[in-house]
Amino acid sequence: AETLAHASSTAGVGVDQELISSVPSWNPTFTERNFTDAEIAYCRAQPAPEASFAARWVGKEAVFKSLGVSSRGAGAPVKDIEILPDAAGVPTVVLHGEAKAAADAKGIAKVHLSLSHSETTAIAFAQAASS
Amino acid sequence: AETLAHASSTAGVGVDQELISSVPSWNPTFTERNFTDAEIAYCRAQPAPEASFAARWVGKEAVFKSLGVSSRGAGAPVKDIEILPDAAGVPTVVLHGEAKAAADAKGIAKVHLSLSHSETTAIAFAQAASS
Amino acid sequence: AETLAHASSTAGVGVDQELISSVPSWNPTFTERNFTDAEIAYCRAQPAPEASFAARWVGKEAVFKSLGVSSRGAGAPVKDIEILPDAAGVPTVVLHGEAKAAADAKGIAKVHLSLSHSETTAIAFAQAASS
Repeated sequence: AETLAHASSTAGVGVDQELISSVPSWNPTFTERNFTDAEIAYCRAQPAPEASFAARWVGKEAVFKSLGVSSRGAGAPVKDIEILPDAAGVPTVVLHGEAKAAADAKGIAKVHLSLSHSETTAIAFAQAASS
Repeated sequence: AETLAHASSTAGVGVDQELISSVPSWNPTFTERNFTDAEIAYCRAQPAPEASFAARWVGKEAVFKSLGVSSRGAGAPVKDIEILPDAAGVPTVVLHGEAKAAADAKGIAKVHLSLSHSETTAIAFAQAASS
Repeated sequence: AETLAHASSTAGVGVDQELISSVPSWNPTFTERNFTDAEIAYCRAQPAPEASFAARWVGKEAVFKSLGVSSRGAGAPVKDIEILPDAAGVPTVVLHGEAKAAADAKGIAKVHLSLSHSETTAIAFAQAASS
């Protein structure tokens, strides 16, 4: 019964990539619309803030895809998906507002996420798990 | 018991990437050998057909990898893996022929898939789930 | 009960990418510190050894990320993560030493992995499964 309680299934996966140079993280209007205060503070404190913003930007899109809902192109509030590192540095997804409602409606309990950036490109992979 | 019925495990994962320019989607021999009629109609109706063909092309290879069978290099019929969007736009995998037989033999009930393309590169991630 | 025994959950995911040219696989000090003898023999026998080394290099980092522990930047022994193909060519992860201890402590029974390289870039995706 204990094992049963921990078992979960994949509800969806999401991948996204973007050139770091194409994410306008130098623009405060862009960052304030799409990132939470905590995300902005974190990214600005990193050695390469533009790479950190770009990684979170593609991370949010990958999470959207994993939820199986219409993506930001449809006007979904990107800021509702917050990505912050846990104590071990693992990017951790917290959903708010409409994104949380969509996840709850699908029985999605957790979204696993990983981020990576090379010198030019940011990439993210997300996996939504239902319980 | 209901939870048990929904629990599933990952049987394999697959990632693939390719330069969009290296996928000869302008060549009808290539597209007709590797894509179903529905896939061709869908890709041709997209704003950037070559990017859509390339994303599906790497998607099919990622699905092959997730099934844990020999890839297209061994002559596996790429057309047996059909990728079409569901109502929410999520790429959905339908297996036919040999690909379906291989998945059935491994108890794979579903393959989750996500596709992405930048201006230059298409990438896909697949996760095969057994039930 | 049989289904229950096979059910597993995702403990974490990991993605990593790198330019093939940035992985110094021509340097024996680098390869001997980071790859096992079996990995070195395998990569050297491939048509493009530098691409095979680079794919395993990002594969090891992706596995680290999926375990949710501090990455190689913290001095974790990369060699403790061994990646070799199984009979079907699927990259299979064997953990040794500290990496195995970290996985055991988290109840991680298996890490699924997929590798890909284009002409310029190697990419890897890993999924750690707990049982």
